[in-house]
Amino acid sequence: MDAVSNRAGVGQQTGPLDLTADVVALTRALVDIPSESGQEGRIADAVEAALRPLPHLTVERTGNSVLARTDLGRPQRALLAGHLDTVPAAGNLPSRLHDDRVHGLGACDMKGGVAVALRLAATVPAPTRDLTYVFYECEEVEGDRNGLHRIAAERPELLRADLAILMEPSDAGVEAGCQGVLTADIVVRGARAHTARSWMGVNAAHLAAPVLQRLHDHTPERVVIDGLEYREGLSAVAVRAGVAGNVVPDECVITVNSRFAPSRSPQEAEEYVRGLFPEYEVRVTEVVPGALPGLDRLAGLVSALDASPRPKLGWTDVARFAALGTPALNYGPGDPTLAHTAGEYVPVEHLRTCEERLRKWLLQAL
Amino acid sequence: MDAVSNRAGVGQQTGPLDLTADVVALTRALVDIPSESGQEGRIADAVEAALRPLPHLTVERTGNSVLARTDLGRPQRALLAGHLDTVPAAGNLPSRLHDDRVHGLGACDMKGGVAVALRLAATVPAPTRDLTYVFYECEEVEGDRNGLHRIAAERPELLRADLAILMEPSDAGVEAGCQGVLTADIVVRGARAHTARSWMGVNAAHLAAPVLQRLHDHTPERVVIDGLEYREGLSAVAVRAGVAGNVVPDECVITVNSRFAPSRSPQEAEEYVRGLFPEYEVRVTEVVPGALPGLDRLAGLVSALDASPRPKLGWTDVARFAALGTPALNYGPGDPTLAHTAGEYVPVEHLRTCEERLRKWLLQAL
Repeated sequence: MDAVSNRAGVGQQTGPLDLTADVVALTRALVDIPSESGQEGRIADAVEAALRPLPHLTVERTGNSVLARTDLGRPQRALLAGHLDTVPAAGNLPSRLHDDRVHGLGACDMKGGVAVALRLAATVPAPTRDLTYVFYECEEVEGDRNGLHRIAAERPELLRADLAILMEPSDAGVEAGCQGVLTADIVVRGARAHTARSWMGVNAAHLAAPVLQRLHDHTPERVVIDGLEYREGLSAVAVRAGVAGNVVPDECVITVNSRFAPSRSPQEAEEYVRGLFPEYEVRVTEVVPGALPGLDRLAGLVSALDASPRPKLGWTDVARFAALGTPALNYGPGDPTLAHTAGEYVPVEHLRTCEERLRKWLLQAL
Repeated sequence: MDAVSNRAGVGQQTGPLDLTADVVALTRALVDIPSESGQEGRIADAVEAALRPLPHLTVERTGNSVLARTDLGRPQRALLAGHLDTVPAAGNLPSRLHDDRVHGLGACDMKGGVAVALRLAATVPAPTRDLTYVFYECEEVEGDRNGLHRIAAERPELLRADLAILMEPSDAGVEAGCQGVLTADIVVRGARAHTARSWMGVNAAHLAAPVLQRLHDHTPERVVIDGLEYREGLSAVAVRAGVAGNVVPDECVITVNSRFAPSRSPQEAEEYVRGLFPEYEVRVTEVVPGALPGLDRLAGLVSALDASPRPKLGWTDVARFAALGTPALNYGPGDPTLAHTAGEYVPVEHLRTCEERLRKWLLQAL
C-alpha cells in the first residue's frame, strides 16, 4: 500500500452510500467499508440505509443480510444476489483506482457485483419483472453461517423467484450451474513402534503410497451438459501422519476433495470415490450437490446478457437456488481466479458492462 | 489408579531418602517424587541431601544434576550415570508394588536404575576402582537441555573415567553401544491451484507417492560389530501436506528417521539417505553419531555382570561417553520397551540382580 493511496485511511468511509453515483465510485466505497465474514454490521447498515428511502422498494433486514423487493404485480420475479463479506484483509485496503481497475479487498469477490446490483436497485424503479435483491452475510465461511442458507432455511418465501442471478465474479460472462463438492478422509492404518525397532510396527505413512499414486494416476471425467463441459477433479488437499519423532505412525489420513459434475447426485459422487478406494476406510465429511446449468429455462436471460455460457467449475450459491427449484446462473464483474488473492481487482469495463446489460434486461419487454 | 494405591497421595514424599533401605523401597520413594523433565528440583534436592552426609563421597550440585565421587587414589575410575527426570505422568502415580514389580511413572525409565546406583553409592565406601556417580536432569527432552550434555560441554573433567555404565533399562542385561540417529525432511514440490481447476496446479501430495513407496520397499541393513548385529531402520515419522480444503497443495514434506549402525559416521549416514532420494530436496535436521560397542575395553565388566551383550538399537547417552573417548555400556533394570508407557514397571528381580552384580564388580580385585 503506497502513501498516496493510503491517504484516505482504512475504514474512514462515514458518509452514506450514494447509489446514484458512478458504479466505480460505489465499488470503491463498498471496498472501503471493511466487512470480513462475521463483521458485516457496518456494511449492512450502510446498504440498508441507502435502500430504505427508495419508494419503489420494500426493505427487510435479517441479521446482517438486507433484502429489497419490488412489488409491481409483474408476471415474473427475478432475484439478484451478492454477498457482503470478504476474506480477511491482506494489506489490500483501502481501495485504489489504477489502470482502469478498482483494486482492494473484495473488489473482485464481490463488491463490484454488489455495486452493480445496488445501482440497479436504486435506478430501475419500474422493471418489467419484479425483482428481489439479496445482499447477504458470511459466504466466505462454513456453509451453516451463510446468510443465504439461513434465509432459505428460515424464510424460504423471501427467496421465491422464477430465476436467480448470483453476482459472483465470472469475467462479466455467464457461468452456468456449478459442480458439486465432496470431501472425504481416506484412512490408512498401521501399528506403532519405536523407530529404533521399526520392524515391530507397520508404517501407515509408507502404506499410503498406493493411495497417493492412485490419485496421481486418476483421470477425472469430463461431463457435457447443455453443451457445457464440466471437468471434474479429485485432489489430495491434505496428508497427515505423525505421532512423534521416534515413533512409527499408526495412521495416515489423506483428505481428498472431489469436484463432480452437476449431473451426479451426492450419493453417486460418494460411490464414485469409495469405488476408487475399495480397500480403504473412506470417511465422507462433506458432500454438497452442484447445480445443473438449466439453460433451457434461462435462454432469454443469456441472450440479453450477450454472453456465451461457460460451465462454472467451482461451487457457488447457485446450488442453493437449484435446491429451491430456481434456475440460476453466475454473472458478475471480475476474474474469478483473482478471488481471495491479495492483488484482487475488478476491471472498470466489467462493472460498466454488467450494469448496462442487466439494466437492458430488466427493462426488456417480457 | 485404585483407591488403595492412591492412599498415600501423589508427591507426598517428604521424609529424606533412606539409602540404607531396600532397593525396592528406594525405587518406590523415587517414583513418588514427581520429576517431569524441567521439574527435577525436588528429586535433586532429595538425592543431594541423601548423599552429602556420606564421608567417602565428594558431592557437587550443578543445576538439578548431582555428582558424587570417591577419591581413593585407585588406578582406575568408573562412572555410573542415571537420569532423574521422567516423561509426563499418565495416571501412573503414586508407585504400586504388585506381582513383584514396582509400577509407576519412571519405575522402568529409570528410577529403578537410579535406586541401584544410589544404593551402591551409599553402601560401597571402598570400591576397588574410584567411582563417579552422576544423577542428571532433562534426558527425556531436547539434547541441548540434557544435564549430561551440559556437564560434558561446561566441565568435561567431571565426567573423566576409564569406563562408564549408563543405567538405562536393559532387562538387567548388557546392551552395548548404540545406533546413531538421523532425521531429515524430504521435500516434494508442486504448484498451487484451486481444486475446482486442479489441472492448473501440480499436486505435491500426489507426487509424494514414490517417496513413500521407496521407504516401504527399502530393506535396512544389518551390520555386525564385535559379534553384535545392529539392525538399521528408515521410517517416515511424519507426512505433512495441506494449504486449505480447496487448494491443491504445493508442498509435501516427509520427515524420515534413520537409525544407523555405530560403525557409520554421521556423514556416511547422511550420504546414505541422500543417495536413496537423489532427485528430491533432502534437508537433514539432526544427526547424532552412535557409539561402538567397544567390548574389547569392557570385557572384564561384561564378564563380572554375567551377561551376554546385546546390541543397543535405540540411541542413549552412551554416545556422549563415546564422544568423550570413554567406553560405555547400558546396564539397568527394566524392559526398555516399557519405557514411556503408562503401564511401565520394573521387576524386583531386576533391581536385586543389578545391585548384586554391580556390587560384586565394584569390590572385585583389579
